[in-house]
Amino acid sequence: MTATRILQRDLVFQGRIIKVALERVLLPSERETQLEIVRHPGGAAVVALDEEERVCLLRQFRHAAGGWLWELPAGKIDPGESASVTARRELAEEAGLSAAEWVDLGRMHSSPGVFTEVIELWMARGLTRQAPAHEPDESIEIHWLPMSQALDWCTDGEITDAKTLVGLYRAGAFLASAVALMAEDPGC
Amino acid sequence: MTATRILQRDLVFQGRIIKVALERVLLPSERETQLEIVRHPGGAAVVALDEEERVCLLRQFRHAAGGWLWELPAGKIDPGESASVTARRELAEEAGLSAAEWVDLGRMHSSPGVFTEVIELWMARGLTRQAPAHEPDESIEIHWLPMSQALDWCTDGEITDAKTLVGLYRAGAFLASAVALMAEDPGC
Repeated sequence: MTATRILQRDLVFQGRIIKVALERVLLPSERETQLEIVRHPGGAAVVALDEEERVCLLRQFRHAAGGWLWELPAGKIDPGESASVTARRELAEEAGLSAAEWVDLGRMHSSPGVFTEVIELWMARGLTRQAPAHEPDESIEIHWLPMSQALDWCTDGEITDAKTLVGLYRAGAFLASAVALMAEDPGC
Repeated sequence: MTATRILQRDLVFQGRIIKVALERVLLPSERETQLEIVRHPGGAAVVALDEEERVCLLRQFRHAAGGWLWELPAGKIDPGESASVTARRELAEEAGLSAAEWVDLGRMHSSPGVFTEVIELWMARGLTRQAPAHEPDESIEIHWLPMSQALDWCTDGEITDAKTLVGLYRAGAFLASAVALMAEDPGC
């Protein structure tokens, strides 16, 4: 991928989580433009499946969305942390779960026009339950749904959170391809 | 959905597209917290399918993502505009297309922890080609891919843009359910 050349960067806000800058950049077309860029450390989200193929979904209050959303256990990457460590930490803190088996479901850009956030997605199986450790600012309920119902909710619009939609759809495609492979090879 | 009560809002940045504020809010738990909130007007994105079930994908340079991404025709809602008008306008400007048939694919929250952006998703068929009208700041190539290949790219990670992933997966589920309905009722 071709990187842009940043000609000038004016930091306009430095918060706890995000930094906002006006960036004058040289595009691949050699044209100059000024962009509003929200820099974010990135995050990780986890599709945690139990032995009955039920998925852990959190019912979580989000001020920026004006209400309660269904979300995968997820959170932002802490300084110096790798995304896979973030995934394990957030699964433990938010859902009270640890997992023996991890499948990498790839990454997504939340809103690449203005926002640098990249979320790394995982599927986790072989779960062990422990006590969650919700942060005081978090309003979270833990729920378990059949994966088939969660996928229906992705399509009918009950689920609207982007990382949750992408994680569930990719996990559904992974599970369907695993079933297809087993059907092709009855010796499995 | 329960709305939060905003106790105080300090605007820290007002840009062309986004506004950034520090907001002190009262959560449903009656706890007070301060949040960094990026306000965005929202957007619309379109899964445009031709008569051979090929989908229009744009190869677009995104400074915030550090390179070129595959994206649906999409854009932000202009002041006073409805999301369905945005969808039609962006499909014409970015892809050079108008459409006779529109299917509502619901909405998504790009990153509801800090970002208010909601994207309305649509499927468009019955296409007519016209000349696109790319903005000078846009670096865009127009491509057409079989829908099945686009869905494979959603799952294998070639496509990473959230709205594009969610739009394609929801359109894929819609098309699969339409095929299933036709198989149930051979009179269709």
